[in-house]
Amino acid sequence: MNILGKPLFYHPSTLTDEFTLSEDESRHCVSSLRHKEQDNIFITNGEGTILNAVIAKANPKACLVRVVEIETLPRHKTLRRLVVAPPKTGEKLDLIVEKAVEIGIDEIIFIDTRYAERDKINLDRLQKIAISAIKQSKQAYLPTLKGMVKWKSLMEDEISGARYIAAIVDHHDASIISKHLAHELGIMQSDTHYSQITILIGPEGDFSEDEVKTAIQKGFVPVSLGKNILRTETAALYALSLVNAFV
Amino acid sequence: MNILGKPLFYHPSTLTDEFTLSEDESRHCVSSLRHKEQDNIFITNGEGTILNAVIAKANPKACLVRVVEIETLPRHKTLRRLVVAPPKTGEKLDLIVEKAVEIGIDEIIFIDTRYAERDKINLDRLQKIAISAIKQSKQAYLPTLKGMVKWKSLMEDEISGARYIAAIVDHHDASIISKHLAHELGIMQSDTHYSQITILIGPEGDFSEDEVKTAIQKGFVPVSLGKNILRTETAALYALSLVNAFV
Repeated sequence: MNILGKPLFYHPSTLTDEFTLSEDESRHCVSSLRHKEQDNIFITNGEGTILNAVIAKANPKACLVRVVEIETLPRHKTLRRLVVAPPKTGEKLDLIVEKAVEIGIDEIIFIDTRYAERDKINLDRLQKIAISAIKQSKQAYLPTLKGMVKWKSLMEDEISGARYIAAIVDHHDASIISKHLAHELGIMQSDTHYSQITILIGPEGDFSEDEVKTAIQKGFVPVSLGKNILRTETAALYALSLVNAFV
Repeated sequence: MNILGKPLFYHPSTLTDEFTLSEDESRHCVSSLRHKEQDNIFITNGEGTILNAVIAKANPKACLVRVVEIETLPRHKTLRRLVVAPPKTGEKLDLIVEKAVEIGIDEIIFIDTRYAERDKINLDRLQKIAISAIKQSKQAYLPTLKGMVKWKSLMEDEISGARYIAAIVDHHDASIISKHLAHELGIMQSDTHYSQITILIGPEGDFSEDEVKTAIQKGFVPVSLGKNILRTETAALYALSLVNAFV
């Protein structure tokens, strides 16, 4: 199936030979994109399957489709997890989710840290942004969004695989020397295969020294993202671009 | 000088022992950040110099400062040029400039292509965003912004150094095989030293086949940015993140 340049719709339920798209997706398909009966469209369940289907009834509130072809796409070999302190503004928070999903992510966890700028997020809203981003970037897996998770509780969880914490260079304990994330990913690549990779990105005011120390004790490798001071959302997208290119 | 965590101001004129900040910068310094006489602040001229200065007169419209220390920072060894088709919405256009500058760029050229979504940009507005981004990310060089430049005129210009064009995989002539940008940058790194690197990013509807062919004839190497379909602004930031990490 070549879905390049063609719209992709989302239907999270169990896939049967014939089913009805949600009201939102039906409107998008029939009213906005003006699809008609007999048109071919693509649909993902967000769990790896992409369907080629034909429109049986172009109802703008309940578009009925009939499955023609089914394909299951492989998942990322290494699960990609972003753990990030949510920025103050909604725009930046939305941007992190939209761009992380476009670039490629499996799980985003929002954490509450000492110098947090925000302690509440609207997961429903972010979920919708994630759905829209997989449709836009033609992906078959909808990432998991979680939060808010307390820093302490995150540090008590078992997190396996490759783990990195991006902390501002020179800011903390001078004994902590951070190499560039690209350098660490290069080592990781040539190393044993990791089933997971987790990247921790702090708030605008950075992690506290205690937080950095705890993370390092938990096996997180401190990494630098270059010389410039990046905002939280920029740091997240910078790191995920490297992960996508390397892992 | 350690300017981490401290505000940086911008003063583009010739630097003398004593000078007055612009009205905008004076307001930012005195009214917003409430700096007082005798406070130490940092100022860049956007051309590589960072000053440590003391406030002699905390006038919110004309803040007088006296230079204490001068430092000149090195420029990127390789000039980084982004040539990008401006997205339709102002938000995305602003985002490209803000994030490109944060991550690290020396020149942004906006081009008009066959499937362009926009043929006019407000350079003054984008210039202000660039200034705000170097202040935020603590950089001493203000990148150059140019545009709109016609595709044809760009292709007639002499562009030397490493050149890449990001075109959607499989979309064009099957004889064009694109490797990932990270792969090409790895080769470039181990190769002769390039004084410039130029990355071409197309509009939402991609470059036309003709445009891709012309660019390849002009020495641009076609590259992929991974399997996902990235929006223009995401592609630009993804590519620049890799350039920053590699070059």
